[in-house]
Formats: sequence, structure tokens, C-alpha cells
Amino acid sequence: MSTFGDASERVVPVDVDAAAAARARHDRLTKPPGSLGRLEDVGVQLCAIARQCPPPVPEPATVAVFAADHGVLAEGISPWPQEVTAQMVANFGAGGAAVNVLARHVGAQVVVIDVGVATELPEVPGLRRAKVRAGTANLAKGPAMTRVEAEAALEVGAVLAAELVDAGARCLLTGDMGIGNTTPSAALIAVLCGRTPAEVTGRGTGIDDERMARKVEIVASAVARAAEERASRPLDLLASIGGLEIAALAGYIVGGAAARVPVLLDGVIAAAGAVVAAAMVPDSVGYLVAGHRSTEPGATAALEHLGLVPLLDLDLRLGEGTGACLALPVLQAAARVLREMATFDSAGVNEGPA
Amino acid sequence: MSTFGDASERVVPVDVDAAAAARARHDRLTKPPGSLGRLEDVGVQLCAIARQCPPPVPEPATVAVFAADHGVLAEGISPWPQEVTAQMVANFGAGGAAVNVLARHVGAQVVVIDVGVATELPEVPGLRRAKVRAGTANLAKGPAMTRVEAEAALEVGAVLAAELVDAGARCLLTGDMGIGNTTPSAALIAVLCGRTPAEVTGRGTGIDDERMARKVEIVASAVARAAEERASRPLDLLASIGGLEIAALAGYIVGGAAARVPVLLDGVIAAAGAVVAAAMVPDSVGYLVAGHRSTEPGATAALEHLGLVPLLDLDLRLGEGTGACLALPVLQAAARVLREMATFDSAGVNEGPA
Repeated sequence: MSTFGDASERVVPVDVDAAAAARARHDRLTKPPGSLGRLEDVGVQLCAIARQCPPPVPEPATVAVFAADHGVLAEGISPWPQEVTAQMVANFGAGGAAVNVLARHVGAQVVVIDVGVATELPEVPGLRRAKVRAGTANLAKGPAMTRVEAEAALEVGAVLAAELVDAGARCLLTGDMGIGNTTPSAALIAVLCGRTPAEVTGRGTGIDDERMARKVEIVASAVARAAEERASRPLDLLASIGGLEIAALAGYIVGGAAARVPVLLDGVIAAAGAVVAAAMVPDSVGYLVAGHRSTEPGATAALEHLGLVPLLDLDLRLGEGTGACLALPVLQAAARVLREMATFDSAGVNEGPA
Repeated sequence: MSTFGDASERVVPVDVDAAAAARARHDRLTKPPGSLGRLEDVGVQLCAIARQCPPPVPEPATVAVFAADHGVLAEGISPWPQEVTAQMVANFGAGGAAVNVLARHVGAQVVVIDVGVATELPEVPGLRRAKVRAGTANLAKGPAMTRVEAEAALEVGAVLAAELVDAGARCLLTGDMGIGNTTPSAALIAVLCGRTPAEVTGRGTGIDDERMARKVEIVASAVARAAEERASRPLDLLASIGGLEIAALAGYIVGGAAARVPVLLDGVIAAAGAVVAAAMVPDSVGYLVAGHRSTEPGATAALEHLGLVPLLDLDLRLGEGTGACLALPVLQAAARVLREMATFDSAGVNEGPA
């Protein structure tokens, strides 16, 4: 069996008893009940994931940046040329991209994986080579890839997640690089979350009204084609209207859930991977934490569909894993509160409300 | 001259040229322009504060927790007994409170200052003793303190800010502890931000509808009394309807601005101190970063008045400096992006949009 298939079968629901224990513990800590707001909710979730209260601090953490290209770029949906994907992979290797800076700042390791960059990449320090194909086909004209290729990309992500956790990672962050990748993300989110293309298509890195109208048309035509092909199962959709890094992210998410570690999502590309993972393995959702709310409308639609409330809302739209890195200290703080705070009894503090 | 008076005169406007340089630098970094959203804005502000681009990373950081009691507690506006203020000061000394946990997590130092706790405090490790008076008088019945006492509390904050920066701190976080202190905060914010008491009074640590109605009445009567007393200058208002820790926070903010370091605000108590500081020394606002949006409505009103957009929005309502600590890594990340990211030229990455 594939690592992805195995992981899919090993994902179990998070532990409601540990969650209940965390809620009870929160009410014994020296603070008004509920006064740490969302931090308390996330602490409860960490307990549910780890099946223990207090939970371990989710560290060390690794952000996996899956890189791939997109044939749909030929439709003019982005002002950035395709070679920027490869150039940014080199930038990741040199440590100069935003995700490198932010990962260093929060103590996370960066791993970059070529799962489908269009060109052959030169020597890049630390790059993992797992190219499934040299970029997808143009999803405006036909299927982005074959089902076999989609399965291979899922496998890349699942294998990496297992390897990272085996090597000690206790929190997996999602990252991505792929010029044009908000287009397949919007298409997948539209179908899997039951939204119209106009509702979930955004301006990506920043496009004008003309390109934006074209992008919505492309997403709508891809969604219509997938319907004609009767592509409704997640794997069929990934192949028809997805992307290689999105498929790898879905595999990575399922792999993280199977390994019972929290998976901290970045922006809309991660959200697309997450809705695919959720459709394939519903119990994987319990392991997901939304790092931030991207400005891409599809991200909000996907998070609502998944029932996730983002930790940060900083108007980010960069991707790479940057928002997940910024959210990591908050996630870790939630664990430390449950582990390190004194209780009313231990500190000799009166409980106020009778 | 007092340290506060001296600091007030030394506050200069932040540097618009350094801000412009930061905006230009952001557009040369390897990311779509503007794609780091609020993180870019904060980076620009850090440059304006430091008068250089890129800015220094705001570290080391110290959170000053000003503790004081409030005579208005006699009106039943909180379910927590007054002795909890002193008990929590002991908890801070023992390292078991939420602010201790979160400050450790983000690498900030905690300093606790008794500026007006009602009782004599026992030996507490690290406690700074600067009690101006043993709690305020009941502001529902008359002035909370004298002008001389308000000035003394301002001085406590300004002296501490100067001392911390002299000792190496490059970022000052606000913290507070004082059972009942959301009531004077609401009163000050109502007057200084031109809001009604109902608009800015919240449930604090969590109170029922009956107490809440009573609290709004108390705030309204205090605001009315201050108007009758013709207390319109910030110092008069502090004395009439303020709190000792709020006055100290205002002094601390002005002291931080005078020392040209960013001051990272916690919740509604800090916001009340900030509107007082802004009324006294308008240019101090340029040095303020709002750490988070407290659930207290007065915090949002004050931040809007000051033109500040909070970094986090996690439904926190604990105080102590907890929200400021959680925001510190985001603030520091904003500096690191400007310092450490590669430019398009240096990384050999194409700029997309023509």
C-alpha cells in the first residue's frame, strides 16, 4: 500500500476526553474563565490532537514548501512569468525569501520540495527533488494531470510528512510556491465547498480588473469541464482542475494527521489542499489549525467549510508558508499556557465569581 | 523638572523619511508588493520610530505590569475581591501567571510595579515598590485621587520606561493588574474619545447583565461628575476618574516615546493610558503599536481614536500584558523582513508586474 493510502487509514478522530480535560484545566488556571479567548480554544485542540492534557509544545516545527508550475498560466491569469517559480526555489535555497526569514524568526525548519516545477532546477541547497511532472497541463483546455500523477503527488506529501515526524518534527506547517496556483485552488474550493467561481476567485499576488475577469472565466470553465467529466471524487478533481503542489499538500495534511501532529495551514493554496484532504479523510480536519486569513476569498470560504477559525488576520497574500510561520508562536503559546500557568489552588489566588 | 515632564518635551514626531524608505524597500523585496499586508505597515512604522531603514529588531523587550487597586470596587462592579490584585502580584513574582508564561515564550522580561495596591505587599521576588497611594478612592463618590497623586503615578511610569531603555530594552510592552480597572478605563475613554459610557463599557473579566447595567451607570455618573468639575485636561481627568496604574501606563508610554522605542499596547487598560498619553503628548502616538483587539468595547473605541489597527484579534480579555506578549513576535518579524529578505536584484528574481 502507498504511504498515502496507509496514512489515510491510520487517521483517527481527535480525542474528545483530552479536550474536555483541557477545558476543565483552563477553568482552574489563574485567570477569569475564557479570558484567553481563542488561545484557550487552540489549547483544547492541541490536547485533543495529542490525546493528553496538558499537551506537548508543538516544537520543533517544519514548514514544507511544495513548488510546482501551472499550465493555466498560458491564459494570462498572472502578471508573473513562470520562471519565477524556479527563481524563488533558488531564493528559498539561499535563505532570502520571506518564508526563510519568518521561519528562522520562529525557530522552524524550511524544507523545499520540487513536486512539479516546469524547468529542471539547478543545484539548490537542501532542495528535495520529487518532480511528478514538469508543471500541469493547462486546465483551461483539459485535465491538469492524470489520476496517476495526482496520486503520485499525494504520495510525495504523505511521505514527506511521515519522514519529518520520524525525524522529530512535532508540528507541520504548510508552504507553497507556484506562479498561477491561486487559479486551481479557487476551482477546487468552488467545487468542494459549493461556491460559485466568482465567490472564491481572488486577485492572487495582485492583478487588475481585466485579468481578474479573465481569471473568473477560467475558473468557471474548469469547474464546468470537471462537471462534464463527472469528476466529483477528490482524486478526480485534483487531476482535472488541481495542481501538483496542492495534491502534495493534501497528502502532507493527511500524513500529519496520521502521525497525530498539528498541521498549521498557511493561505489559500493550503486551504485548497485541506478541503481535498477533508473530502478524502474527514477525520484529518481535527488536526488542522488555520494560521491566518488570507485576503484571497477562497481561503475564507474553505476555512468556513472546514469549520476553522484563523489565528491571525494580517491581510497577507504571499503564501510560501509565511502566515503559518507567523502563527506558530501563538499555537505554541496555547500549549505553554496549559502546561505552565499556576492554578488558583497552587497560587493561593481567590476565585472571583461565586 | 520631573522625568515625565522632561520626557514629554523630548518626544519628537516619528521620521517620515525613514517610513518612505521602508515603503520603497518593501517594493524591492522578493514578494509581490504589499503581499505581507499589515506586516509591511508595521515594518514601516518601526523604521519611522527608529529613524532608519531597515529598522533594528525590537529586542530585548520588557513588559511592565503596573498593579493598583480601585475604590470603585465597593460599588460591586466586579465579582472578584480586591485581594486578588495582591494575590496576582505574588503570582507574577512566582512566575505562574499568564503574562509570565507568555513573556517567557516570546523572550520578554517581566517587571512588576506596585503603583497603588490597596494592601501592603509581602516579599515578592522582583517586585518594584512605587506605591503612590493604597488604591484610589471610589470614583462613584468623588475624585479617584488628587492631581498630585496622578502626577506621581505618571512619574512612576516615565521613570521606569527611562530606566528600562537605559538598561537595554528596545521594546516596551504594557501590562496591568487591578481588580476593577476596566471601570476607570471606560470612563477615561468615554470622555477623551467622545463616546457614551454605554458604548465603551464592557464586561471586563466577565460579569452578568445586572452588574453590567450597574457598571454603565457608575461610568456615566463618573463622567458626569468630571464634567461638573470641569475636568477636561488629561491630568484633571486622571485624578477625577482614572486609576493609578492607568496614569503610570500613560507615563510609561510617553517615556517610551521619548526614548524612541516602540511601545506595544496590551488591552483596554493600556488603551486608556494611551489616550491619556496622546492627549498630553500627541506625538507619542507614532510610537504605539496595538498588540491586539481586546473584547472590551472601550479598547476598540480607543484604538480607533488613536488611529491604531491591532495586530491580533484573539478575543482576549485577560490583561496583564498577555496580548502584547503574543503580538511581540509579529512586531519583531516585521523588522526582520526588512532586514533579512533578499531583493529582486540580489536574488535574481524577475519582477512580475510590468
